[in-house]
Amino acid sequence: MLTRIDHIGIACRDLAEKIAFYQSTFGLTVISEETNAEQGVREAMLMVADAPAGTSYVQLLEPLGSDTPVGRFLARRGEGIHHVGYGVADITAALGAIGATGVRLLDARPRHGSMGAAIAFLHPADVGGVLTELVQSARQP
Amino acid sequence: MLTRIDHIGIACRDLAEKIAFYQSTFGLTVISEETNAEQGVREAMLMVADAPAGTSYVQLLEPLGSDTPVGRFLARRGEGIHHVGYGVADITAALGAIGATGVRLLDARPRHGSMGAAIAFLHPADVGGVLTELVQSARQP
Repeated sequence: MLTRIDHIGIACRDLAEKIAFYQSTFGLTVISEETNAEQGVREAMLMVADAPAGTSYVQLLEPLGSDTPVGRFLARRGEGIHHVGYGVADITAALGAIGATGVRLLDARPRHGSMGAAIAFLHPADVGGVLTELVQSARQP
Repeated sequence: MLTRIDHIGIACRDLAEKIAFYQSTFGLTVISEETNAEQGVREAMLMVADAPAGTSYVQLLEPLGSDTPVGRFLARRGEGIHHVGYGVADITAALGAIGATGVRLLDARPRHGSMGAAIAFLHPADVGGVLTELVQSARQP
C-alpha cells in the first residue's frame, strides 16, 4: 500500500532560516514554496532523493499564527519532526482500507496538499503517537 | 550528500504489538529484527519501498530499559517519531563536511547501526530540534 516515504514534515519558527540551513548543511534543493491557508502554514519542499517510486522530501513548515496546528505544536514541543508522509498510489483506496482496520481518519476525504498532491492525515493516537499522512502525488504513482 | 530518507525511527513501548500494527494496517514487511545493546534498544526494520538509491524503512524502537535514550524519550514525550535517518554514500566524508559547518556530531566516528550499517547522529539542537542520523548502508550506495 505504501510506495515510499514521501516526506518528513518538520515544524520550524523561521522558514527562510531553516531553508538556508538545509541547503548549506545538507546540500538540499528547494523544489517548491507555498502557503497553505487551510492548514495554516507556509512551507517549503526540499528534495532529498528522486527515484522511480517517487521523490522524497524534507518539508519545512512555519505556522501562519500561534492558533494553528503547527503553531500549537511549536508552543507545546518546540521545533522538530511534526509528521511523516507516505506515498500511496490511490489515496481513496488507501483511506478505505486503513479506515476499515479501525484507525480513525482525520480526513475522511483527501484534501489539497503540497505541490498539488491529494493528502489525508490519520489520527496519531491510533498510529502509536505518529501523525501520519498519506500522499498521492499529482505527478507520480 | 543525502541519497534518500533511509528510515523514520519510531519509539514504542511494545515492539511486537507495533510490528503487528504496521503489518496489518499498512502492509509493511519486517526485514530485520535485532537488539542493539550499545543503543539500548530492540528494533525492527520494516520496508516501505525499495529503490535504486536504497531502501526506505520504518524503524520501530523499544527501549531495553527506562535509563536509555529511547526510554527517556518515551517518559518525556510518549510514543512517536524519535528521529530521521538519511542515506549517505560516504559517512566519513559526510561527517567531515557537516561538522565543518558547525553542526555538533554526537558521533565523531561512525558506529554500528541496523543491518550492519555505519551510522552517526547529529546534535538535534543544531538541526532545528530534529535528531538526525546519517546511514551508510552495508548493502547499498
